[in-house]
Amino acid sequence: MAIGQSMLRVDAHDKVTGTAKYTSDLEPRDYLVAKVVHSTIAFGEVKAFHLEEALAVPGVVKILTCFDVPDVPFPTPGHPWSVEKAHQDVADRKLLNRRVRFYGDDIAAIIAEDNVAADRAARLIRVEYEEFEPYVTVDQAMAPGARPVHDEKPNNVLVHSGFQVGEMTYDEAVAGEDDLVTVQRTYRTQTVQHCHIEPPTSFAYQEGDKITVISSTQIPHIVRRVIGQATGIPWGNIRVIKPYIGGGFGNKQDVLYEPLNAWLCTQVGGRAVKLDITREETFASTRVRHAIDFHVAGAVRRDGTIVARKCLANSNQGGYASHGHSIVANAINGFKQLYRDEKALECEANTVYTNIAVGGAMRGYGIPQSCFATECLAEDMAHAIGMDPLEFRLKNCMQAGYEDPHTHVQFRSYGLQDAIQKGRELIHWDELRAKYQNQTGPIRRGVGMAIFCYKTGVHPISLETASCRMVLHQDGSVQVQMGATEIGQGADTVFTQMASEVTGISVKKVHISSFQDTDTTPFDTGAYASRQTYVSGMAVKKTGALFKQKILEYAGYALRYPVENLDIRDDQIVDTVTGETLRSVADIAVEAFYSLDRSQHITAEATSHCKVNTFASGCCFAEVEVDIPLGKVKVLNIVNVHDSGTLINPQLAAAQVHGGMSMGLGYALSEQLLFDAKARPLNGNLLDYKLPTAMDTPDLQAAFVEVPDPTGPYGNKALGEPPAIPGAPAIRNAVLHATGVAIDSLPLDPQKLITAFTEAGLIDD
Amino acid sequence: MAIGQSMLRVDAHDKVTGTAKYTSDLEPRDYLVAKVVHSTIAFGEVKAFHLEEALAVPGVVKILTCFDVPDVPFPTPGHPWSVEKAHQDVADRKLLNRRVRFYGDDIAAIIAEDNVAADRAARLIRVEYEEFEPYVTVDQAMAPGARPVHDEKPNNVLVHSGFQVGEMTYDEAVAGEDDLVTVQRTYRTQTVQHCHIEPPTSFAYQEGDKITVISSTQIPHIVRRVIGQATGIPWGNIRVIKPYIGGGFGNKQDVLYEPLNAWLCTQVGGRAVKLDITREETFASTRVRHAIDFHVAGAVRRDGTIVARKCLANSNQGGYASHGHSIVANAINGFKQLYRDEKALECEANTVYTNIAVGGAMRGYGIPQSCFATECLAEDMAHAIGMDPLEFRLKNCMQAGYEDPHTHVQFRSYGLQDAIQKGRELIHWDELRAKYQNQTGPIRRGVGMAIFCYKTGVHPISLETASCRMVLHQDGSVQVQMGATEIGQGADTVFTQMASEVTGISVKKVHISSFQDTDTTPFDTGAYASRQTYVSGMAVKKTGALFKQKILEYAGYALRYPVENLDIRDDQIVDTVTGETLRSVADIAVEAFYSLDRSQHITAEATSHCKVNTFASGCCFAEVEVDIPLGKVKVLNIVNVHDSGTLINPQLAAAQVHGGMSMGLGYALSEQLLFDAKARPLNGNLLDYKLPTAMDTPDLQAAFVEVPDPTGPYGNKALGEPPAIPGAPAIRNAVLHATGVAIDSLPLDPQKLITAFTEAGLIDD
Repeated sequence: MAIGQSMLRVDAHDKVTGTAKYTSDLEPRDYLVAKVVHSTIAFGEVKAFHLEEALAVPGVVKILTCFDVPDVPFPTPGHPWSVEKAHQDVADRKLLNRRVRFYGDDIAAIIAEDNVAADRAARLIRVEYEEFEPYVTVDQAMAPGARPVHDEKPNNVLVHSGFQVGEMTYDEAVAGEDDLVTVQRTYRTQTVQHCHIEPPTSFAYQEGDKITVISSTQIPHIVRRVIGQATGIPWGNIRVIKPYIGGGFGNKQDVLYEPLNAWLCTQVGGRAVKLDITREETFASTRVRHAIDFHVAGAVRRDGTIVARKCLANSNQGGYASHGHSIVANAINGFKQLYRDEKALECEANTVYTNIAVGGAMRGYGIPQSCFATECLAEDMAHAIGMDPLEFRLKNCMQAGYEDPHTHVQFRSYGLQDAIQKGRELIHWDELRAKYQNQTGPIRRGVGMAIFCYKTGVHPISLETASCRMVLHQDGSVQVQMGATEIGQGADTVFTQMASEVTGISVKKVHISSFQDTDTTPFDTGAYASRQTYVSGMAVKKTGALFKQKILEYAGYALRYPVENLDIRDDQIVDTVTGETLRSVADIAVEAFYSLDRSQHITAEATSHCKVNTFASGCCFAEVEVDIPLGKVKVLNIVNVHDSGTLINPQLAAAQVHGGMSMGLGYALSEQLLFDAKARPLNGNLLDYKLPTAMDTPDLQAAFVEVPDPTGPYGNKALGEPPAIPGAPAIRNAVLHATGVAIDSLPLDPQKLITAFTEAGLIDD
Repeated sequence: MAIGQSMLRVDAHDKVTGTAKYTSDLEPRDYLVAKVVHSTIAFGEVKAFHLEEALAVPGVVKILTCFDVPDVPFPTPGHPWSVEKAHQDVADRKLLNRRVRFYGDDIAAIIAEDNVAADRAARLIRVEYEEFEPYVTVDQAMAPGARPVHDEKPNNVLVHSGFQVGEMTYDEAVAGEDDLVTVQRTYRTQTVQHCHIEPPTSFAYQEGDKITVISSTQIPHIVRRVIGQATGIPWGNIRVIKPYIGGGFGNKQDVLYEPLNAWLCTQVGGRAVKLDITREETFASTRVRHAIDFHVAGAVRRDGTIVARKCLANSNQGGYASHGHSIVANAINGFKQLYRDEKALECEANTVYTNIAVGGAMRGYGIPQSCFATECLAEDMAHAIGMDPLEFRLKNCMQAGYEDPHTHVQFRSYGLQDAIQKGRELIHWDELRAKYQNQTGPIRRGVGMAIFCYKTGVHPISLETASCRMVLHQDGSVQVQMGATEIGQGADTVFTQMASEVTGISVKKVHISSFQDTDTTPFDTGAYASRQTYVSGMAVKKTGALFKQKILEYAGYALRYPVENLDIRDDQIVDTVTGETLRSVADIAVEAFYSLDRSQHITAEATSHCKVNTFASGCCFAEVEVDIPLGKVKVLNIVNVHDSGTLINPQLAAAQVHGGMSMGLGYALSEQLLFDAKARPLNGNLLDYKLPTAMDTPDLQAAFVEVPDPTGPYGNKALGEPPAIPGAPAIRNAVLHATGVAIDSLPLDPQKLITAFTEAGLIDD
């Protein structure tokens, strides 16, 4: 049994020794370099370029500007294509843009022999702008009379949506009972950036009529499509190769610079062009996690029953639509799903164009924001009625069998309550809640928690389709080709385990092709949501069954044996009736290749169109120590408990959780991309942007409640994004427990805490 | 209709502009270089190395010798593997050899940071040998008491074989008639080298447990297998990538340095190692065309009927078996097939180990040698009875329906006699034969001819199996993946045409993946024989039909239309009954990818196990002018006429013929790799080895008799090797016509001609 084993990552050796190949390792010979010229204003129009001096720099090959590019708007998010216009993504940007919509917008590109020349030229380009007053916040952009960031959206609201659950409105529900306690708050989440190790990097070159782009992306097949949309090149003439990548976390679920690079290469006769960007450009000009403001209210009975909630979420989209409204729509769905409202639930959301960095996909896709609001509100309701917040959650949280009334996503397996109980024990909840009551003094401790749920794939909101191909080698080993992508999360390893499980070929004999090449790799939409182990895993299982059947059919022919009595176990063809080992798969493979009677190269390929989905869930418990005068929160202990179905590889699962928890710590305590009034990023670099380091990180505890999910290919469901979700509200709630002060915005940085503690009288003015 | 069109080569643009990628263009970062140390004696034993000085050279990483390599003998020829031991190739060499068997044998390898260090170290290595007297000729090696080159073959005969056709022996046939004219001669062919532009080059590197070798080879899947045999690495752990290659002509149908390079890379921790060799090493240490001596006799009636022939062919194998006996076996088969012997035919062949460069595969695989002997004998028999040699050939040559009594290969289509008649007209045979009678003076002209036949694939002597995969792109274009390899001959282009023909997708929308990657490319044994358009073409046709059916099935589903009424024409789905165009393939493709009802990524893959074969045939006519005192032959006019079935691409077919004719000119007149008595190559470089240049080459005329072959996938049969076959004997026979002097060995160089003309009294002593 390969499933459930903590086998070593298949890429462990390569990544540790440095032989793993990333985009930059695959440099074509004699490539040129491209440097993007970014706007130095956040909102306005480019009027003219003065390029003479730049063009005179030795080594500069060509400079192309927003006046040169095709007049074709295109979308960038990594969503499956839709044949229905209404379901297609918002196409609101061009390869280079005359209308500048954020500080760092792409307005020109320099192609040069080397970086030195490109950098010198960039400094010598003068740009004339007409500058407008930029909008940093949604409130500014939504204010009456605000100038449209995109002319198509006069009020700067890209999309407004909403829904109501229950038979009455929130106000009617509140008015209908006397003794309700209501809580009304605004919870705010900040702009953060993915901070993947490897910035976006690509090479583009032309051979014949084929443009090849090697790129650090999560979504090679979607990159191909968007290059086609942006450049007009037929999709089949575009080839995207994805090697190992140094993280993505959703930023590389946008099609960032590949279309520009493909087009630039066509402007220099198809010669290879490298387009990589710096860390600072990654902060300013790629994607960020949306800052969302949640205006919420909740009404609760004294017995702890939630009667009604409502939520208005305004999402700061920045200058372009990218993933657009789907993220805040996901956020209000998350608000809806996590608790039962006895009478009423109202949700509304706006996605608002502003002039800050563009919001895109990031691990959790709106749910870390949503969870912060939902779990602050839950905590604050429990707090308001004096109820233990854990008991409050057990009483009100979504139950086994819950089905979303709109998307109809269900819990096909349910472990949330068990996860809460497991976390309660691991953190010593009851003991610590009692122990940390009534503290005084400058240093106080507290314990807090948060729960979450998360859907696994994107069905039925979007298409879920995945293919796999398997090739039998002569030594009885199997080559597995996935459209799904390894982005550091261990996908290749779990696919290897699944391929072994379904075929009976030992994991040592499963070779996975880690690179995707859209010319020949089976199709898959790529690494996003928490879909691959679930959706793409189904393709492995389906293909593996077909592949095994082909081997057994050949074995039946070669051995003159009834196929229905044959199986593969531990690389051997066995008689299922007697258990006898008949021949090795290797022997059958060699026979199949080289038989003079019937030569057959055994391969199998299949598409799995997934039309099911399931919720994963879980919780985080945090114990903190707050230094009130310093405004400093130290996380003493933190534990995530995940209801993610069967674990394919427990060690990798734990690693996945650790990574997400670390991201949650930064989200809770230190990370925030700041903008000044001109919408200029203030701290878009790794010195000033406070990503947590090892020194800031306590031991991270990962625990699991393994309830096999009947829809998962091997009982598994979402685990990729969930670990990043519940940390911030758990820490915020622990600080509330420690100090009695509820902080309603992220991050809980010293400045904010000192202000809040001062207001609360914990620090003398 | 794509078949029969002279479409531009699919790689034309890339090859003309220099964007086509060859092995050296794919250099991995930070690779080391390997240099092979070759023996400086031709026969003996390595006793010791003195490496101290070499190891002290800065930049030298490691030196490995014949005392370090695995003690595993392996074969090198590019033949399909056989599960039967008796049909496996001779495994007679190791990665580096202690027993030295030719001048330039591989005895050590230096791995260094750069070529300068490697070259310096190579000069500083001292080797102690025990030296034996080497054998240059088969007669020396077969002499009684000769020392065995390989201990397993005490008489140095690797294999002896023979057959007899007819009810009596040659001698009985001759004794049975009174008025027979007999001719008894020895015809000798020389050692020549392929002289492909790009010498053998490879990179090897390790990632995880996978060794990747990028190599300039004709046979990537076989290279993988032989690396496995030589190194003990499981075959599935070896990945061979074949980019564009600068020619092969059979030399790269041997597995030359890839196993050594793969092993070297494992000796430096898996780091990338480049192993390329110089032109001089290519001459001395790779493969050559076998020199074969034919001791023949023929008995003919005065009416021109051949009564009996016999042939003993001794093939100079050089130091290792490589393709072994199969080449001279092919040669005596060729001797057998080309003419009908009324009473008797006897053939014998010996493959003899000597100490010259190793004989391997080269375009024509023994048949250029055989054709020289066969067509000299035919000419000399016709000459002996005073019959027009063309009429002699028409009377005696193999007829329609001929079936080889041993291999059972047949003419499935027959155009030989028509080809002879066409050539007769094109060269103005009858006019010139009359005109050039009775010449005198130092400059004389003549016209000569030769015919040939050639089987297409290797069935039934060996396995013929090929696979193809097709992938539908969203724009309705198709990606074609072949195991068969483009080696400059235009394979990718004809496969493109075939894929278009069978699918109904226009050639512009057929994308062929030119590189092979044994991890994922469908299996095929590779480019050799004249098999690919025939055997691998069948795989294209089979796969294309399956692929088209899948598209039509999806179209039937999407359009709610009966599939049996659908077809694809010019990229459109059409109703075959009404002829109406229903939708584009592109529309159906997009629907298939992104349908929310039924998402399906349409691909198809199939193996074609070919169990048929057919003869191609043809002839060459040459008009020459001989400068008797200078011993100089000038070819005034030369025409090849080919019976190769339907031409897939007439322009490429003509180019193929031109290339072969050029090779034939060199074989006839100037090329010979010479060895001294110590078996040292005397002229193993492109200055001293007289490859014909453009200045030596007349206009080359290619003509065809297109008789569609019923077994060819599109009526086609062999065209790859045949053009190189008949040129040499046609020119030799033209010289005989011009001068009355029959030259019985190749090449017809000035020294040889002057000697012969002097002996014949045409030049005064």
